[in-house]
Amino acid sequence: MNEKLIFTNLVGDAVDTLVAEAGAPRTFVLVDVNTAQYVLPVLTAQSKAVADATVITVKSGDINKNLDSLQTIWRSLHDAGATRSDIIICVGGGVVTDIGGFAAVTFKRGMRVINVPTTLLGAVDASVGGKTGINFNGCKNELGAFSEPLAAVISTGFFNTLPQQELLSGYAEMLKHALLESPEELAALMRYSVVYPIFDADRLLDLLRRSVATKQRIVEADFADRGTRRALNLGHTVGHAFEALAMKRHSPIPHGYAVAWGCVVALILSHLRLGFPSDTLHTFASYVHTNYGAFAFTCDDYPELIEYMRQDKKNDSPDRIAFTLLSAVGQPQINTVVEKSDIESAFDIYRDMTHS
Amino acid sequence: MNEKLIFTNLVGDAVDTLVAEAGAPRTFVLVDVNTAQYVLPVLTAQSKAVADATVITVKSGDINKNLDSLQTIWRSLHDAGATRSDIIICVGGGVVTDIGGFAAVTFKRGMRVINVPTTLLGAVDASVGGKTGINFNGCKNELGAFSEPLAAVISTGFFNTLPQQELLSGYAEMLKHALLESPEELAALMRYSVVYPIFDADRLLDLLRRSVATKQRIVEADFADRGTRRALNLGHTVGHAFEALAMKRHSPIPHGYAVAWGCVVALILSHLRLGFPSDTLHTFASYVHTNYGAFAFTCDDYPELIEYMRQDKKNDSPDRIAFTLLSAVGQPQINTVVEKSDIESAFDIYRDMTHS
Repeated sequence: MNEKLIFTNLVGDAVDTLVAEAGAPRTFVLVDVNTAQYVLPVLTAQSKAVADATVITVKSGDINKNLDSLQTIWRSLHDAGATRSDIIICVGGGVVTDIGGFAAVTFKRGMRVINVPTTLLGAVDASVGGKTGINFNGCKNELGAFSEPLAAVISTGFFNTLPQQELLSGYAEMLKHALLESPEELAALMRYSVVYPIFDADRLLDLLRRSVATKQRIVEADFADRGTRRALNLGHTVGHAFEALAMKRHSPIPHGYAVAWGCVVALILSHLRLGFPSDTLHTFASYVHTNYGAFAFTCDDYPELIEYMRQDKKNDSPDRIAFTLLSAVGQPQINTVVEKSDIESAFDIYRDMTHS
Repeated sequence: MNEKLIFTNLVGDAVDTLVAEAGAPRTFVLVDVNTAQYVLPVLTAQSKAVADATVITVKSGDINKNLDSLQTIWRSLHDAGATRSDIIICVGGGVVTDIGGFAAVTFKRGMRVINVPTTLLGAVDASVGGKTGINFNGCKNELGAFSEPLAAVISTGFFNTLPQQELLSGYAEMLKHALLESPEELAALMRYSVVYPIFDADRLLDLLRRSVATKQRIVEADFADRGTRRALNLGHTVGHAFEALAMKRHSPIPHGYAVAWGCVVALILSHLRLGFPSDTLHTFASYVHTNYGAFAFTCDDYPELIEYMRQDKKNDSPDRIAFTLLSAVGQPQINTVVEKSDIESAFDIYRDMTHS
């Protein structure tokens, strides 16, 4: 992995150093309408590279992570005469880094990218690992490419103003990484409160550094996502099904909440199939219940949830449901094929644990 | 480099073996309207994988190497439920392999590709080296990505029906490779006739194998095209300028012809600047003149041609013109910065040699 990860709350200095080292003739900054308003003025004051850059703005939200926004970026780069030697600094959450990364890797076969994630979810997940993309024809991330950014500047200073729900959503991915790493990391995260009364930015930066290191280790071993990288899918097979059902009910849920709940179901399945220890399962489930509440569903929803899982693009064949499970904290078992009856039992246990 | 190159005139067998080895659940075939008519029926009879495949057809010609055709392919893949594990077989010239490769690398972050080039230019150039892309906003290959196909099945059996102009156009890229390789390769090519009275398919397959090996060696050393790969740009800086001027005059010239003429000018510059031997220059120039004729222009066209070269995207800065030149056959010198007065002298000499 060649991506440089810089953990600092002096973001402007870090960006200027990176741009100077890269020797780029010109710099572009990609923002969405939110980061244009709240973050860009701060960065412009802190960084010469940002102040001198050509700014490209796209609409915010996952609904705008589409071909229209991508064409807006391509056209802006074209009109400004951008070259392969230039740099794009993507300032925003996962939508901005995903679409900006995709625009960059496809413009003249590859401009260089610096990511400045402004959300916890972006910091822990979207800006590291080289996955870029857009939604297409109603499917999430249907188009995209693998491409590593030159660097990501990861900070916690922009998180002060984030809604509590968004912080918790990002924290769920950190919990997932800790489950894949070790009991010590999991305990450290469960001791820390990301929302109450106010988070400790320096301590969070340290936890983030360790969490991102887990992701990096896994991505490094399997950049093109053909094998062991699927460990990062922990909690996502069930989580995506919860999201899809919630979307159909017209009451969407935050991605991170779905992941947290999905991790609980994955640990239940891990207990049933691989002997994952029940005390750890209960401690984790209780932490998630306290902080994230629970997903409400009945046994009438099981067939639909299972159908969503079948369609999950991570499955090579539509006829098997492969999960990432854990034999213990830090011991992922990818491609564990699970029977429908086990999934139904896990749903029963989840609903029993959460009284839903 | 992981791309498998298979030189054979038993194309169907090679494709079936590759698909079986790859273990792809499903196979797609991309053709344009020409290869749909002339090549697909032959391949369908020879190959079970092709016969069983879902066929996607795009319009032919460089003018259709655009976002509309790309969206057609993305939508067809989406509607057919294609997955990352599936394979696309691109059957056609450079347009089909360029756009098919780009569609594949961007669909679900990367399907696998087998290229079956059906033109000499495609065989020698477009299907090897991992450059994919489309034209955008009037610029050639403005959007694209680097991505290696799984394999290319290179044959000469489809060339029988190609127009002579198209064979010569592809042969020009082979001449370019020979200039980059060795005096022996250059002599072998100049002894062979690709068009008269009828080409020897087996001998051409052998020459092709050696020519592609040159390209592979250079690409391997610099996959992302940041340095030594620019050797492959030999003849293209001037060639692109000739193409642009011809286009403006509404009498477009084949790309390969422009490259052949561009190589002659590059050798003249190489002689002026790097002492490239004049006997080799004259032998080569005479071979090109006999087979390709010459580009007709006057000294009034010099400023415009030089301006086109300045705009060439291979230049990091708009203020210098960097050429790939040769100190001898097989000895490329990339990024040789040349003064305007040298270019004008080279044009004078070229026009004098060709009596234009």
